[in-house]
Amino acid sequence: MALSVEKTSSGREYKVKDLSQADFGRLEIELAEVEMPGLMACRTEFGPSQPFAGARISGSLHMTIQTAVLIETLTALGAEVRWCSCNIFSTQDHAAAAIARDSAAVFAWKGETLEEYWWCTERCLDWGEGGGPDLIVDDGGDATLLIHEGVKAEEEYEKSGKIPDPESTDNAEFKIVLTIIRDGLKSDPKKYRKMKERLVGVSEETTTGVKRLYQMQETGTLLFPAINVNDSVTKSKFDNLYGCRHSLPDGLMRATDVMIAGKVAVVCGYGDVGKGCAAALKQAGARVIVTEIDPICALQALMEGLQVLTLEDVVSEADIFVTTTGNKDIIMVDHMRKMKNNAIVCNIGHFDNEIDMHGLETYPGVKRITIKPQTDRWVFPETKTGIIVLAEGRLMNLGCATGHPSFVMSCSFTNQVIAQLELWKEKSSGKYEKKVYVLPKHLDEKVAALHLGKLGARLTKLSKSQADYISVPIEGPYKPAHYRY
Amino acid sequence: MALSVEKTSSGREYKVKDLSQADFGRLEIELAEVEMPGLMACRTEFGPSQPFAGARISGSLHMTIQTAVLIETLTALGAEVRWCSCNIFSTQDHAAAAIARDSAAVFAWKGETLEEYWWCTERCLDWGEGGGPDLIVDDGGDATLLIHEGVKAEEEYEKSGKIPDPESTDNAEFKIVLTIIRDGLKSDPKKYRKMKERLVGVSEETTTGVKRLYQMQETGTLLFPAINVNDSVTKSKFDNLYGCRHSLPDGLMRATDVMIAGKVAVVCGYGDVGKGCAAALKQAGARVIVTEIDPICALQALMEGLQVLTLEDVVSEADIFVTTTGNKDIIMVDHMRKMKNNAIVCNIGHFDNEIDMHGLETYPGVKRITIKPQTDRWVFPETKTGIIVLAEGRLMNLGCATGHPSFVMSCSFTNQVIAQLELWKEKSSGKYEKKVYVLPKHLDEKVAALHLGKLGARLTKLSKSQADYISVPIEGPYKPAHYRY
Amino acid sequence: MALSVEKTSSGREYKVKDLSQADFGRLEIELAEVEMPGLMACRTEFGPSQPFAGARISGSLHMTIQTAVLIETLTALGAEVRWCSCNIFSTQDHAAAAIARDSAAVFAWKGETLEEYWWCTERCLDWGEGGGPDLIVDDGGDATLLIHEGVKAEEEYEKSGKIPDPESTDNAEFKIVLTIIRDGLKSDPKKYRKMKERLVGVSEETTTGVKRLYQMQETGTLLFPAINVNDSVTKSKFDNLYGCRHSLPDGLMRATDVMIAGKVAVVCGYGDVGKGCAAALKQAGARVIVTEIDPICALQALMEGLQVLTLEDVVSEADIFVTTTGNKDIIMVDHMRKMKNNAIVCNIGHFDNEIDMHGLETYPGVKRITIKPQTDRWVFPETKTGIIVLAEGRLMNLGCATGHPSFVMSCSFTNQVIAQLELWKEKSSGKYEKKVYVLPKHLDEKVAALHLGKLGARLTKLSKSQADYISVPIEGPYKPAHYRY
Amino acid sequence: MALSVEKTSSGREYKVKDLSQADFGRLEIELAEVEMPGLMACRTEFGPSQPFAGARISGSLHMTIQTAVLIETLTALGAEVRWCSCNIFSTQDHAAAAIARDSAAVFAWKGETLEEYWWCTERCLDWGEGGGPDLIVDDGGDATLLIHEGVKAEEEYEKSGKIPDPESTDNAEFKIVLTIIRDGLKSDPKKYRKMKERLVGVSEETTTGVKRLYQMQETGTLLFPAINVNDSVTKSKFDNLYGCRHSLPDGLMRATDVMIAGKVAVVCGYGDVGKGCAAALKQAGARVIVTEIDPICALQALMEGLQVLTLEDVVSEADIFVTTTGNKDIIMVDHMRKMKNNAIVCNIGHFDNEIDMHGLETYPGVKRITIKPQTDRWVFPETKTGIIVLAEGRLMNLGCATGHPSFVMSCSFTNQVIAQLELWKEKSSGKYEKKVYVLPKHLDEKVAALHLGKLGARLTKLSKSQADYISVPIEGPYKPAHYRY
Repeated sequence: MALSVEKTSSGREYKVKDLSQADFGRLEIELAEVEMPGLMACRTEFGPSQPFAGARISGSLHMTIQTAVLIETLTALGAEVRWCSCNIFSTQDHAAAAIARDSAAVFAWKGETLEEYWWCTERCLDWGEGGGPDLIVDDGGDATLLIHEGVKAEEEYEKSGKIPDPESTDNAEFKIVLTIIRDGLKSDPKKYRKMKERLVGVSEETTTGVKRLYQMQETGTLLFPAINVNDSVTKSKFDNLYGCRHSLPDGLMRATDVMIAGKVAVVCGYGDVGKGCAAALKQAGARVIVTEIDPICALQALMEGLQVLTLEDVVSEADIFVTTTGNKDIIMVDHMRKMKNNAIVCNIGHFDNEIDMHGLETYPGVKRITIKPQTDRWVFPETKTGIIVLAEGRLMNLGCATGHPSFVMSCSFTNQVIAQLELWKEKSSGKYEKKVYVLPKHLDEKVAALHLGKLGARLTKLSKSQADYISVPIEGPYKPAHYRY
Repeated sequence: MALSVEKTSSGREYKVKDLSQADFGRLEIELAEVEMPGLMACRTEFGPSQPFAGARISGSLHMTIQTAVLIETLTALGAEVRWCSCNIFSTQDHAAAAIARDSAAVFAWKGETLEEYWWCTERCLDWGEGGGPDLIVDDGGDATLLIHEGVKAEEEYEKSGKIPDPESTDNAEFKIVLTIIRDGLKSDPKKYRKMKERLVGVSEETTTGVKRLYQMQETGTLLFPAINVNDSVTKSKFDNLYGCRHSLPDGLMRATDVMIAGKVAVVCGYGDVGKGCAAALKQAGARVIVTEIDPICALQALMEGLQVLTLEDVVSEADIFVTTTGNKDIIMVDHMRKMKNNAIVCNIGHFDNEIDMHGLETYPGVKRITIKPQTDRWVFPETKTGIIVLAEGRLMNLGCATGHPSFVMSCSFTNQVIAQLELWKEKSSGKYEKKVYVLPKHLDEKVAALHLGKLGARLTKLSKSQADYISVPIEGPYKPAHYRY
Repeated sequence: MALSVEKTSSGREYKVKDLSQADFGRLEIELAEVEMPGLMACRTEFGPSQPFAGARISGSLHMTIQTAVLIETLTALGAEVRWCSCNIFSTQDHAAAAIARDSAAVFAWKGETLEEYWWCTERCLDWGEGGGPDLIVDDGGDATLLIHEGVKAEEEYEKSGKIPDPESTDNAEFKIVLTIIRDGLKSDPKKYRKMKERLVGVSEETTTGVKRLYQMQETGTLLFPAINVNDSVTKSKFDNLYGCRHSLPDGLMRATDVMIAGKVAVVCGYGDVGKGCAAALKQAGARVIVTEIDPICALQALMEGLQVLTLEDVVSEADIFVTTTGNKDIIMVDHMRKMKNNAIVCNIGHFDNEIDMHGLETYPGVKRITIKPQTDRWVFPETKTGIIVLAEGRLMNLGCATGHPSFVMSCSFTNQVIAQLELWKEKSSGKYEKKVYVLPKHLDEKVAALHLGKLGARLTKLSKSQADYISVPIEGPYKPAHYRY
Repeated sequence: MALSVEKTSSGREYKVKDLSQADFGRLEIELAEVEMPGLMACRTEFGPSQPFAGARISGSLHMTIQTAVLIETLTALGAEVRWCSCNIFSTQDHAAAAIARDSAAVFAWKGETLEEYWWCTERCLDWGEGGGPDLIVDDGGDATLLIHEGVKAEEEYEKSGKIPDPESTDNAEFKIVLTIIRDGLKSDPKKYRKMKERLVGVSEETTTGVKRLYQMQETGTLLFPAINVNDSVTKSKFDNLYGCRHSLPDGLMRATDVMIAGKVAVVCGYGDVGKGCAAALKQAGARVIVTEIDPICALQALMEGLQVLTLEDVVSEADIFVTTTGNKDIIMVDHMRKMKNNAIVCNIGHFDNEIDMHGLETYPGVKRITIKPQTDRWVFPETKTGIIVLAEGRLMNLGCATGHPSFVMSCSFTNQVIAQLELWKEKSSGKYEKKVYVLPKHLDEKVAALHLGKLGARLTKLSKSQADYISVPIEGPYKPAHYRY
């Protein structure tokens, strides 16, 4: 696919797989809207006042049907939007087509190369005249990273004349980032600093991106305010947990059709994502073994009847391996060599460094047999047995299935809309410094409340005397900040 | 698609969607083999003696990857095989392609019309010279039905000269059956009777087909011996239960991506299939309501914490409806009109008469919007709200996903192989009359035993004194015939 | 406790722990009545016609609160009743007291010696003038056994003058049986034959007793008709399964207060009882390992995510062991020696020969520390570590808790009432020979139906055309005899 | 029971039900020690250095077997201890006896009156010469309350000469508190202030007590430092959740023997305690309905397949009602009047004001029938139907069963020991002000780690590069403070 931007008849830029899938995308978007009451309520509540009028929003977040409903909520509130995916396999091409045709500038398709991926990210941030976006919706932090690295390079260049050298790193992906920045430097040595100047803030979607933000906050290198959407209760305790409980078996089934019942499954990591994965596998009839570094999470696993062992203990007897840690180097090629024939290996964490794909790809004599896209069998030369790796070690639920379902994404994305509204509203007030913030609890509770009606729930109301007795306002928030749910 | 038979370079007949998918099919067949230890054990145990040498086997059973492994087990044991699907949506085209290219005559593709479906069935039974097959593998009983109806018509014709009149029935499908038989009569008025003469017997896969067989046995119209594979414990208590527990959510997810957690789901019927469906939905976080006619099954549902109500009680508040009854007229258009917007309606029972598709299709002013194949939204004119019907009311797990996974199908199909071997071995002994038989318990236990090693299980062995104490042989069978598991 | 019969003011015989507990028993009986809709419906339906008028019923069945409601249902229908427990630990003394005071002759208390146990059984069968009972309600078959052994001894004595010799057996319990028969012979050498003559039949409650009956049927030694209540679906698939799912953790908790979550539990046997136990332990958060001889049951366990291993594989790492097999010699003292300190060992099968109590008691140097009644710690001399044995290896749910809850016993006992009614009604018709029978399916369905209303269920009704389509009567029965539920 | 202190032969004070139960208590304490690895590890680690040498610890916390192990851990570390229960029904008399005989001054028995309860509390705090305790272990905050109210009264008295007037309040329990303080004033007008002076701090066990502490912190009235043990992850996410999951069904079964399967159960509140209760009931086969005020918790319930309604919606159709809210006035007598006959009503929250016992007791014509201690049937005059109230509306798991099992209490109590050690160690450092603190995360993780070995778990270790990648120390703590587990 040649990397040139196309334009709709109305002049909006895009680069998608196949614009003719827009009708199909539109039908699925309409179905999703019914399942996303929080986003639709935002349209109803905020649409008339057009709070985003004049705001440019760039988003780097899986370009799925659910994200399409998010994008069209942002545009319904007055924003102008550019979008890319934050994973090379996570785009749903019909969703991208519908948005490109109808609503926003989209640069995303399923199965990008890494070069294409970063080209899309750069396109998403580039608003032409006037620099970059006012606001960023980020997932994993790649858009944020590009700006930070760009600014750093520009400052270094201004100071020392040194330009970024892609050869200075072994990391294949970072080579590409440096190349893009280097090329940008040539055309406009203030490109990323102009972006930074304009930028009001970022709202970050996921654990991994949040971790990066806190690291930058600690080192004092964060360039603009950030809202940590991931740690809204209605995000991390819903999307991460219940979303994965849904999408992990979905991905396994679509990719391999394997029977989960009776199998031995290893879940590496028992955080919110791991909890969702382990629950799904257990319920489907697998015997689940958890690996953990954190004794508290390990004890939680034990209380649910799960065995806690190390990967080494079980590597040769398990049938399914799932990484959920957010850490790196979890399943190495040396583990993979010892696995049973046709053991399934996959990752549902944000980045693809949990599974040692590099070690696997470079293993002497290894043979890759692509069963179908995102499902590969890798055969080791010594044993002639193979393992099945999903989505090349990337997010398997988005690579092999369609990611999390609309309803739970409505919770996450309603937090995103609220975070974006808050950043935009306070853009000149100085309320937000170059730090990481979470949304206040009453907004978290509001997000939840918007999703109850769809499920037929009826809340109990506190009486005045009850509210006084437990020292909370009748209308909430009901819990202290440290409450864990 | 023109209905003409094609031939491989070796001269074998076939009609499939796309022979070029054979390589893909072969890869998935190879994966499935690892998951189907019972079938592979049959190849090892019986392959060398070629027990099916000289046998012609016709199969009418979903032409999936798993069935491909069954077919190639039959051919590995010496049989010649012709095959068709028993459902218009259940074929996996790559499986059909691989088998057509490599192993057997196949007439099947995903998305047949009813005319095409019966054409395939007729092709499957037609072995040219020498009449029909020696053995039939049937699923739902359509191959058996065609022969029985054919024989009946030929006898009537011989007696009275009357030829079958497709206009004599309102049933769209039966019109086609009569047409085929009528046309057959013209070319060979003894066609089906010759088939009957040659036929050693049938092994039937599913509840619905078994019911038909027992009805024929009772009325004395059964034309050849039948083995009821469905009621092997290792079939109905595994495939029907654990298979559906896997494939129902799989079908729902692939067709609609809807979040199951939090939804209200109605499962009509709480037999083995219904139990599997209800378990899957409950585990995925739905609130499940069961409808039942049988007080025992109803009480079982209640003991699992499920609510038992009538469809009328809940039709307007549920989100997902699944029929599993094996009966007809379960969800009528009058129910569908009262459902919530975007309620999902699907059937996982064998035949498509559980959901009143005719009533829906002919509802005045109703509008059908095809989201994607096998996923339609039907909008009612009064309310402008729509329901989502999967696989046009047919088997949703095969129409919208890939059916049951290999491991559990290995149990079912090992029973099939054993049944076919038994019929063939006893073809001249008179052991089997024109009745319906089940396999003896020691074979049922053997099927189970063949599947334990794959899952790492270790059986306990009885001592002599223990065996005597409970009056069973050390090597089994361990249970009386009436034992319910 | 001196073994002499006492009499109420009305002259009815009894022997219970403490008649002053009758008021407490009555209160709990009244609570239980609300939970036993099947039995109460029998009173309403059959009470007015007094079908048991003139009938003497002897029952050997755990003398619990639930059994009290059964007994008073039998008396409400006109019967005269004598009762004993079928297990030395299973009597609830307040239940026995209430029945003794108000309704029937009772010989039962919690914690009988074996001598006392068989004395009670003999008292229960001895109706004084006119021989024995007309009908027996049996559980485990001890009442039936006593009569069969008595008749055998009398016939031998008449033939050869040989009297039973308690020293001829090593079995401690059978010594007592022979002693009782020997003593009976002296007073009346036709005692048991007179009983046999009068006896119309027995209805047997449990798997173990049923197995004995079928063995006698096969050897032609069964002396009177028997109805196998255990294999009513509404008995074995409810009481055995859901009853144990309730009462196993109840017994564990009351006896040991141990946390089940996080523990490794071994369930020996995966029949109905084992399935209930395994489900309870898994749900409580244990990791459950199953031992099985039957490959079908083993495969069922695997499909539920349970590991299947041999006892030897896991004996030294598990925390809880439960036997449910109905076989003997399951956990031997050599196993127990290898267990972890404070491993819990218990049996929920009918007889106490699943756990090698004799081997434990006679182990050199072993030390028994009674924590509280029915909870003993046995310390091995080599390791100084101990295991905890519940209820001396007998039925732990009745020994350590109160057995199955009322609602599920209502299903079982309604079958008992119906079986007794059937035997009595057909006492002269010759309908029942000296064989074992199960109740017809429509009565089984009726039992279930009587229990739906209490749980708020609403059944669906078949239309005529639906009933015809599946070839069943509108009002049932709905399933073929071989259906497994 | 006359309220006079008794003395052991060694001169230690006590007041318990029956000192002869000490041997039984000792046996159960020894069993519990094996299940409480955290406490035993504290004895091993800290015992030799006797860190509590010279420390007086007063505890107001359910005097159970588990608490006995806590007390003996404190004494093993050098403390002198006085103890009372924090609930009138929660004492296990054999535990109290063993501790009174062997280890500490105990004032507690099952079934205290409210007067007796506060007498015990006052005894527990009164160390004679030298004022009160150095440290308090509190559960629910009653010991803390008494000191605060005492100090307030003394200051008021000193200022204005006014003495507390029990008639100034309608609250029956507070009348007693005022009486005790008034009587104390007479004997020593500085009694509570002397206590306050000596007191180093309190560690509080439960949600309710913590709420009181934060209220005092906010109003500036807290008199000494407090450590909030409840909000250690290894407390609230274990004891509250998994403890209640165990003890709720235990209490229901022991009190009522009712079958939970098939019932409709209402859980009021879906916090940690409610989550545990709902999980237990669902797993036991009940259909569970949740009432909630907090939309986030409500949405969590929905995601688990639970229905969320108001109490009014379901009051007349549910079988079991459990309050878990920590709020007051949850189930009022007007609700109870509308319930089904023999509906079970119970509370597992700390205080007894969740259920309107006062309204019930004073309902005109209501009749109380005590089935057995802590199980009452209340019959309404209009309907003659009754409801069953457990433990008089107090903590049903401690009133009707034995509370939480040892293993999970070991987590909670290890936090207590660590908190007490910390307070005592820093008694002079000024580290802790008159505020509420939680334990640092590395101690929380340590508590968990101490409990893994018992369950056979093996933790994974981070490599240096992994630890750096996620910015945590190799040895932890592994999570940010806001992490929710």
